[in-house]
Amino acid sequence: MLIVQKYGGTSVGSIERIKAVAEKVAAFRSRGDQVVVVLSAMSGVTNNLTAMAYELQKQPSPREMDMLLSTGEQTTIALLSMALQEMACPARSYTGAQVRILTDNTHMKARIKEIDSEKIRHDLDQGTVVVVAGFQGVDENGEITTLGRGGSDTTAVALAAALKADECQIYTDVDGVYTTDPRVVENARRLDKITFEEMLEMASLGAKVLQIRSVEFAGKYNVPLRVLSSFEDGPGTLIVSEEELMMEMPLISGIAFTRDEAKLSVIGVPDVPGMAFKVFGPISDANIEVDVIVQNIGADQTNDITFTVQKKDAEAAAKILEKTANDMGAKGIRVDDKVAKVSLVGVGMRSHAGIASRMFETLSKEAINIQLITTSEIKVSVVIEEKFLELAVRALHVAFELEKPPA
Amino acid sequence: MLIVQKYGGTSVGSIERIKAVAEKVAAFRSRGDQVVVVLSAMSGVTNNLTAMAYELQKQPSPREMDMLLSTGEQTTIALLSMALQEMACPARSYTGAQVRILTDNTHMKARIKEIDSEKIRHDLDQGTVVVVAGFQGVDENGEITTLGRGGSDTTAVALAAALKADECQIYTDVDGVYTTDPRVVENARRLDKITFEEMLEMASLGAKVLQIRSVEFAGKYNVPLRVLSSFEDGPGTLIVSEEELMMEMPLISGIAFTRDEAKLSVIGVPDVPGMAFKVFGPISDANIEVDVIVQNIGADQTNDITFTVQKKDAEAAAKILEKTANDMGAKGIRVDDKVAKVSLVGVGMRSHAGIASRMFETLSKEAINIQLITTSEIKVSVVIEEKFLELAVRALHVAFELEKPPA
Repeated sequence: MLIVQKYGGTSVGSIERIKAVAEKVAAFRSRGDQVVVVLSAMSGVTNNLTAMAYELQKQPSPREMDMLLSTGEQTTIALLSMALQEMACPARSYTGAQVRILTDNTHMKARIKEIDSEKIRHDLDQGTVVVVAGFQGVDENGEITTLGRGGSDTTAVALAAALKADECQIYTDVDGVYTTDPRVVENARRLDKITFEEMLEMASLGAKVLQIRSVEFAGKYNVPLRVLSSFEDGPGTLIVSEEELMMEMPLISGIAFTRDEAKLSVIGVPDVPGMAFKVFGPISDANIEVDVIVQNIGADQTNDITFTVQKKDAEAAAKILEKTANDMGAKGIRVDDKVAKVSLVGVGMRSHAGIASRMFETLSKEAINIQLITTSEIKVSVVIEEKFLELAVRALHVAFELEKPPA
Repeated sequence: MLIVQKYGGTSVGSIERIKAVAEKVAAFRSRGDQVVVVLSAMSGVTNNLTAMAYELQKQPSPREMDMLLSTGEQTTIALLSMALQEMACPARSYTGAQVRILTDNTHMKARIKEIDSEKIRHDLDQGTVVVVAGFQGVDENGEITTLGRGGSDTTAVALAAALKADECQIYTDVDGVYTTDPRVVENARRLDKITFEEMLEMASLGAKVLQIRSVEFAGKYNVPLRVLSSFEDGPGTLIVSEEELMMEMPLISGIAFTRDEAKLSVIGVPDVPGMAFKVFGPISDANIEVDVIVQNIGADQTNDITFTVQKKDAEAAAKILEKTANDMGAKGIRVDDKVAKVSLVGVGMRSHAGIASRMFETLSKEAINIQLITTSEIKVSVVIEEKFLELAVRALHVAFELEKPPA
């Protein structure tokens, strides 16, 4: 098998950890696999470098930040290669520029355009483990770029796609993707498989195991992606395309949730065209991301427009909304940051009616009031009072029998 | 003026120091100079990285060491560029690979073959300060190489040569080159000028201000080299070719000395051909560098061969010599590590007889016994008992009136 393995900052956070990673990698090679390793910087290093930059420049130059931050991964690839060589496992490190991970020139959030895999293939064919710096690339002018936070995942997936790897393994501090947060539901179950689409919904809803862009990338190029623990052995969770999951598709894969949203409403908006734009135009101008949006017509021919934003943006959004409400002759605004959002995610729900109603029935039995509802093809989300969050997640986990593996 | 400035590790050892360097650089630019800055890693960083490497690999791979160590300079060039930009001084950092400091492929002690100065010239023409990582280059295959300890000096000189710079300024923690060590002779005098040849002798004799290779390089390409302090203002010492110094050539420029040698002798070597090779062949095979060599024929038609090695090599050399002495039927060996070497250096002595005899006279007046003598065109060295070192240096400093500036 040709495997691309990515190890994050905590997995290479000390000399001891680096040795442990080297042992893992060497074991795969001994089994006959060809291995490409992608590494992040040692945990803490990127933050330290960033802090130094801010001591020197109020708004550090993105180009110079990339020059600075890319040293973090360059350090770990050299160290891991040394550790591998000490175990008599041939290894060679490469920076992003050296294997020509060509990106656009958007410093600090560059996008990969193309990878020249020739050098890597040559080394692999000779039985050498190739160790590549994650998170970084090079633009057409030879300028060093970085892909932004979590970019090492993207590097790994892009390399796996370019090399047509059999699997891209992302080693993290969790041993896979769970039906929901095990800290909330004791018998939450590790999923053996999940689809890219479900993973995207789980991730964007607060179950952050992988960087979203890397999952999109893997889905697009159909790279089998596996999330697994760098500290324990275990099969982890394989993220695959829907077709591959076909026969064993469960109705619901998991329950995602977040406490990180606040709910805002404008009450009594006149029912004339253009009101929604008037509400959301200024919010968007202020770079505030809006999540759930619901509009209801009231009995008095005026609308209530309700939406959620991240908690940190609630105050700024409320200020803007106050002004908008005044301008448009609405009755007023309401802000509630004691809310939580719970979502059922599953590609199976596409072909099965009744998921939403079973969800509502479960919450109703627990006397949990639903404030907002939104649905997408593979997701049903409700916004509820924050204090009922754990109760709701546990009740839904039982109702949809998520503790049981699919038949 | 086009100036290449090099700042060492202590000069960029902290955020505050980096800001101080930025102020110095920005001042040159404000005066209308074009400035290229070459930096070392922050002091301590290279040693830390090296220590990590040795924790992972008994004999760290030279290729991976270069990958690792080159991050040190990459960090400082980004930080200094940020500091300059914050002072509204346009600046751009480049790694060795980016300005294509092409070297051979000898990792950890690569030699510069050629520099592509186009990118740098382009930036300079736009009024930008160019900040280049010292100590590192790239070979023909895009592999990162380093030049070995002190390599940043060489980078600076090589860049100055490639750019035909008006001056190459090496900023250090001393404010110039002195007639001798001011810790030994209180009124040691800073030299305004010194020739490349003299500087080489001073450096190789233990007055380590600059890396020897960088001085050779500067001499070869006739790059005016100035040593000055990063912490105080002052003209420093300009190192120039002999022609430029012609008119003001002093007899003696300085007194170098070292305590770092041990003296070994083989006594009673039969006076037949091939004996010297028999003595020095095995020493050289063991990679021990020999400094002074003196051979004297004794009254009994046997030779005494005496030489000095670095103190750290004395024990190993003695072991080898013991065996050699036995094999060749010599009478025995003697080892003395309580010696010191004192050297007068000056291009002026070429055209003036009597320097050596005045030296011997001075030492004799102080009742200092001379054990060995060697001379070169611009140097007279004597090996004496170590305890007389300070006395000898002070007496010679007075005898040759080194405290007085040349007329």
